[in-house]
Amino acid sequence: MNDNFHVLITGAAGMIGQKLIARLAREPRIGGKPIERVTLVDIDEPAAPKGAPFKVNTRTGDLSLPGEAMAAVADSPQMIFHLAGVVSGEAETDFEKGYRVNIDGTRFLFDAIRQREYKPRVVFTSSAAVYGGPFDGPVSDDFHLTPHSSYGAAKVIGEQLLADYSRRGFFDGVGIRLPAITVRPGKPNKAASGFFSSIIREPLAGQNAMLPVDDKTLHSHASPRAAIGYLLHAATLDTENLDLRPNLMMPAVACTIAEQIEALRKVAGDKAVARISRVRDTLVERIVAGWPHEFEAKRALALGFVPDKDFDEIVAIHVEDELSGEVAA
Amino acid sequence: MNDNFHVLITGAAGMIGQKLIARLAREPRIGGKPIERVTLVDIDEPAAPKGAPFKVNTRTGDLSLPGEAMAAVADSPQMIFHLAGVVSGEAETDFEKGYRVNIDGTRFLFDAIRQREYKPRVVFTSSAAVYGGPFDGPVSDDFHLTPHSSYGAAKVIGEQLLADYSRRGFFDGVGIRLPAITVRPGKPNKAASGFFSSIIREPLAGQNAMLPVDDKTLHSHASPRAAIGYLLHAATLDTENLDLRPNLMMPAVACTIAEQIEALRKVAGDKAVARISRVRDTLVERIVAGWPHEFEAKRALALGFVPDKDFDEIVAIHVEDELSGEVAA
Repeated sequence: MNDNFHVLITGAAGMIGQKLIARLAREPRIGGKPIERVTLVDIDEPAAPKGAPFKVNTRTGDLSLPGEAMAAVADSPQMIFHLAGVVSGEAETDFEKGYRVNIDGTRFLFDAIRQREYKPRVVFTSSAAVYGGPFDGPVSDDFHLTPHSSYGAAKVIGEQLLADYSRRGFFDGVGIRLPAITVRPGKPNKAASGFFSSIIREPLAGQNAMLPVDDKTLHSHASPRAAIGYLLHAATLDTENLDLRPNLMMPAVACTIAEQIEALRKVAGDKAVARISRVRDTLVERIVAGWPHEFEAKRALALGFVPDKDFDEIVAIHVEDELSGEVAA
Repeated sequence: MNDNFHVLITGAAGMIGQKLIARLAREPRIGGKPIERVTLVDIDEPAAPKGAPFKVNTRTGDLSLPGEAMAAVADSPQMIFHLAGVVSGEAETDFEKGYRVNIDGTRFLFDAIRQREYKPRVVFTSSAAVYGGPFDGPVSDDFHLTPHSSYGAAKVIGEQLLADYSRRGFFDGVGIRLPAITVRPGKPNKAASGFFSSIIREPLAGQNAMLPVDDKTLHSHASPRAAIGYLLHAATLDTENLDLRPNLMMPAVACTIAEQIEALRKVAGDKAVARISRVRDTLVERIVAGWPHEFEAKRALALGFVPDKDFDEIVAIHVEDELSGEVAA
């Protein structure tokens, strides 16, 4: 095992991966230890951050292919952020690819660590998709796991592997169930949840956005910055206190669409709000109605995970981190 | 697809598998359909029942090895009882074997069915080991899944696969979480739970038994006959009513050790009870204390699964099914 502090990030080309490496480049310590090296792995070539005060290796590879997981941990990184995965829409349309990447990829990575016989910290991004309705109020930490998607099923399976490998001492794992990440930067996408971000992101950029659901629709959100905070807190958490339950639902800001829109209005005025067109879509309404809307996240809060303060802050973070403070007139 | 009704049983050499095939030999119908053929698969050569009114094929094979699962479903059995697995003690001591048999074997079987593109009923035996403490009273159907063993983790993973494959229409699955099976026939074994059966079985056979825990210890039980009843009920259940939650905790008789002993006394008298020696074992006490003791099983009861009436009936079933009605004087 190396003495220098070495971090491995899988899925490093994704939005969260890129924000994590950028944050580490700015604040190159984890738990007080200076990072000496970061390895970025992804199916697509991951971009290395500019001016990072540590060595960065990039690696293109699919963890579900023979040997790739072994190669990824060949020099025993002490800190592993396992973010790689096929997103929920693709996991539903391409069953075999979803299972291969989300289940095999995770198991092969965990097993490669086991076979190296060292005990790194592993932070795994799970998802609120592990829960399936019917829901009766906010989802408690004890709520049963009955996902309604192949993506969610794969996340439950990854969580079970993480918990069992941790219990047996193969590594020291923490799984964090992320809520919706809002405001998601970038282009509009076809995800059914896309409008939660686009009704903020597009008007702030002077573009029009469509709202397919009722203004009273409740949903829970974390900013990309809060999500990176969760990852870094999970990286240094004392796992002795997890009682063999290392998978934690993260806290989130629960608010209605109407409250989201008022937060937009405060920052960018009526003109920005007027860029939202209400075009009801019963399919999207039905999909969204099947998702959990609110989480207690008592365990995560007690363990020191810090959510955004409110949706105003979520909008402010987007303006600051993505728009350099500039809002379209 | 064949017109004749063909049943596949994996793990057919095990105690439950052998009782299931014996029951089918006596009552050769499922859901009113006459069984024309049964295939028994196990790592060990499974015994075929005598005088069965249908054709019996036996097959020795490990479903976790390439091609075996495909071979097992090659002629599209319409009813599959997937009982195969490494037991909890062995899954804990031999990690790789447990994962290979319990996870890979299950996934390969399910995937072989998917690839054949027919839609059989699949009944999967899960376990109360999917639950981990702390417990606060009886375990509800909505209780979270945080197993404390590799066996339990593999059962959760099998359940997730079953639910997802069923949701996607690859097969029509029902998972049944079995409680402790008591009175387990056969020799005493090294399972930490063995005494729940041996304090009844051994005295009834004129043998001595050791009791390592307090008389007030509460636990939940189903007779082997009730377990076979659960399997057969799951085989014909209307899965439309399962709300994407096809994994069901089975009902069980909850009683204390003292109540178990009184049931023994009614059947075999004080002399039999005197064959039980109290030898406290703090390790066993600690293990047993970590298990769930009682289950609500509301969903399974509402769906028509029928438990034993009480522990008296569980003892009576053992005397009738295993001892031909004969109790040691």
